[in-house]
Amino acid sequence: MTDTLDKILAEIDAEADAARDRLMDWLRIPSISAQPAHAADCLRAAEWARDRLATIGFTAALRPTAGHPAVVAHHPGPGGSAPHLLFYGHYDVQPADPLPLWHSAPFEPVIAEGPQGRRVVARGAVDDKGQVSMWLEALRAWHTVAGGPPCRVTVLLEGEEEVGSPSLDAFLAANKAELAADVAVISDTNMWDIATPAITTRLRGMVYAQIDLHAASRDLHSGLYGGAALNPINALTRILGGLQDSEGRVQIPGFYDGVAEVSDAQAAEWASLGFDEAAFLGEIGLSHAAGERGRGALERLWARPTADLNGIWGGYTGEGGKTVIAAEAHAKLSCRLVPGQDPAKVAEGIRRFVAERLPPGARAEVSILNTTPGIEVPAESRWVAAARSALAAEYGRPAVLVGSGGSIPVVESLRRLLGLDSLLVGFGLNDDQVHSPNEKFELTCLHRGARSHARMLAAFAGR
Amino acid sequence: MTDTLDKILAEIDAEADAARDRLMDWLRIPSISAQPAHAADCLRAAEWARDRLATIGFTAALRPTAGHPAVVAHHPGPGGSAPHLLFYGHYDVQPADPLPLWHSAPFEPVIAEGPQGRRVVARGAVDDKGQVSMWLEALRAWHTVAGGPPCRVTVLLEGEEEVGSPSLDAFLAANKAELAADVAVISDTNMWDIATPAITTRLRGMVYAQIDLHAASRDLHSGLYGGAALNPINALTRILGGLQDSEGRVQIPGFYDGVAEVSDAQAAEWASLGFDEAAFLGEIGLSHAAGERGRGALERLWARPTADLNGIWGGYTGEGGKTVIAAEAHAKLSCRLVPGQDPAKVAEGIRRFVAERLPPGARAEVSILNTTPGIEVPAESRWVAAARSALAAEYGRPAVLVGSGGSIPVVESLRRLLGLDSLLVGFGLNDDQVHSPNEKFELTCLHRGARSHARMLAAFAGR
Repeated sequence: MTDTLDKILAEIDAEADAARDRLMDWLRIPSISAQPAHAADCLRAAEWARDRLATIGFTAALRPTAGHPAVVAHHPGPGGSAPHLLFYGHYDVQPADPLPLWHSAPFEPVIAEGPQGRRVVARGAVDDKGQVSMWLEALRAWHTVAGGPPCRVTVLLEGEEEVGSPSLDAFLAANKAELAADVAVISDTNMWDIATPAITTRLRGMVYAQIDLHAASRDLHSGLYGGAALNPINALTRILGGLQDSEGRVQIPGFYDGVAEVSDAQAAEWASLGFDEAAFLGEIGLSHAAGERGRGALERLWARPTADLNGIWGGYTGEGGKTVIAAEAHAKLSCRLVPGQDPAKVAEGIRRFVAERLPPGARAEVSILNTTPGIEVPAESRWVAAARSALAAEYGRPAVLVGSGGSIPVVESLRRLLGLDSLLVGFGLNDDQVHSPNEKFELTCLHRGARSHARMLAAFAGR
Repeated sequence: MTDTLDKILAEIDAEADAARDRLMDWLRIPSISAQPAHAADCLRAAEWARDRLATIGFTAALRPTAGHPAVVAHHPGPGGSAPHLLFYGHYDVQPADPLPLWHSAPFEPVIAEGPQGRRVVARGAVDDKGQVSMWLEALRAWHTVAGGPPCRVTVLLEGEEEVGSPSLDAFLAANKAELAADVAVISDTNMWDIATPAITTRLRGMVYAQIDLHAASRDLHSGLYGGAALNPINALTRILGGLQDSEGRVQIPGFYDGVAEVSDAQAAEWASLGFDEAAFLGEIGLSHAAGERGRGALERLWARPTADLNGIWGGYTGEGGKTVIAAEAHAKLSCRLVPGQDPAKVAEGIRRFVAERLPPGARAEVSILNTTPGIEVPAESRWVAAARSALAAEYGRPAVLVGSGGSIPVVESLRRLLGLDSLLVGFGLNDDQVHSPNEKFELTCLHRGARSHARMLAAFAGR
């Protein structure tokens, strides 16, 4: 088998320029899911992917959803006991604005020289067309050299990831049998750095709440009523000002229930990464770390829950002064959750936190806008082990297991609706400008990502 | 002299209908100072007042300012040691909107029947054309019966009170000698109720501040940075949530320096007024009083300083959820001050309060938008004593000495620039709809207010 894999890697090397050109073709289609004017482009981008899959041995079709279509494709692989993989990705992209900040047209991809080599610059270069292209190229090379992949493969590409995947859950539920697999493989995350591959094993979840505080039946003159009338902005700051104690611990009742301490082994691995928090914060103009005292930087970002106010408003917010006591005040609060926390219990804790601090005469509404649990992928699974060995072979150093402070909702959906764990192996870099002007993908990441996926296919198959 | 005063009061009684008609003439001029389209109407309203004063023995003239003209008029009075009064008022009115809520056209005054008798309904009916008309009628009657008032009288009517008197201070400073007097008399406040006259001896001042908190150099993704990056909204609520302690006491350093306790006599007088705080708050939908614990309702409104947040904003305030950690957060804070507090010290206390609570890495700007000291008019002055005796004679019950939770900036300007105390005797009622649709003035208030002013002129002159 080593001989076959060598040939496949050589094929990927020989096709590097052609692979780059194929990605650039796809990037020329402005498949912006958020903008109805680009609906036809979304369809074209889906057709492009369907056609690519059809040329490399897949049975591929567009599948209608309530929104943009999904692409579903199947390859039987070698049959027998070969594992069954579900590759998930998305063909839609973020809007390109603000356009004036782009150095080249967002949907006319160009190759530019950067400090780490050549890169392709376009909207979607990395998120997610570039990352999807890596495994499409790996599957292509396996097809060319070996007649097909060494595993059974199902592909699911959605067209609404950038607008929150509104049709995804229904599509998964309706096609549960067809989408069954042993594990999901997703490339939509980052490497640790350009020389160090990473597997993301932790994702934080979320509870998002809006808090509306009501006091008097109308706005009041602060001279005539100040000293007698409840001020809902004072009350709201008094309530929310107690969200954290002086050590940065969140004071919502039951908030830390189920939060596990990071294992010593995990802590040691994260410490060995040499994360430079001062540089991380310095880049955004901050000189001091926030969050819980006495916790490591990566632990706070990946393994500890948070309570951040995302918005606040009330009263007069224009120029100059207006002496009003407002009738109401509002805030938006999001808690990032870690595995083990129950989102419903956290939501209930937020309600209790507000109710217990509500001054007499005020009325509060707490609306829960969103709940997603934190996710942890078992780090000892055969899939992670296979991926680590493949990545070590490609990069000459072990892949690191990292967390992500954000959420990838599809991971939770795949687990809940299909019972699938996800293997999150991505090849983006932190400076790729995802969702921003001048999004880029390093050509070396595209190339070595394709080689890594080719190696992972072999490793999953036990070859 | 009693004989003369009786004739003057009889003259006012005989002229009651004519006085009402004269007020209605003035009310037909839409002298809205805020709206440039009404500049010519402001001029007409000023000319109307000038002409009225000229017919009752005054040397009257329009005087240019940087904005709408002032009316200045002089009457030498009887000469000798007679006191010199400065009557201050304003001829401009608030805009009339929202127009649909008026039951009659705002500048076509009508006489309507109300639960307390007949009333004139129009914009400016009470504020301040109606209240000025009372003393114009008193001066008219003195002129008709006695050839002139028993005091030397200077009149100052401004045309910009409803837009914050932007030209007043400069005009006072430039005409200091001409406007010299022994005391200022102002009718722009309310009675206690329709049967009980009131003299306002306390006005709260103000320090108005804007607080701008800055953290990161740009908005951040709360998943990627939550747990490491300082959140300025959390920080702002934490700072401002501590403005009051659990007893409602303001925690700004030095805030209560110079605040005197209300005298027992004053407290007893206020207690005797039978103020119904539950009804006062119930009208605006509130069931519980706010402010300092253990203080009386009128004491909290008139004699205790406050710290009210008038506005707050930051981050995402639209529909739904956005997981952003904002770069900045803002609030507007106004403190109502009582006599004895130094506004500059309170402003400095606000700066210290914020600075002492600022988390490391945050930057705060505190901008002071306005400072006005609280004012207390000596309740034992000869002017107050004279006014009380005159009002008691008219109403058959003593006038009460009240405070006002708001500010009347001209009172501070007159003291600062001309060295004058103000005697605040007004005949408005709490339900007069000042600044609102269907502003009204009770005809009995107009009539008995004119009689009261005629009596006060006699009392000031010691007759």
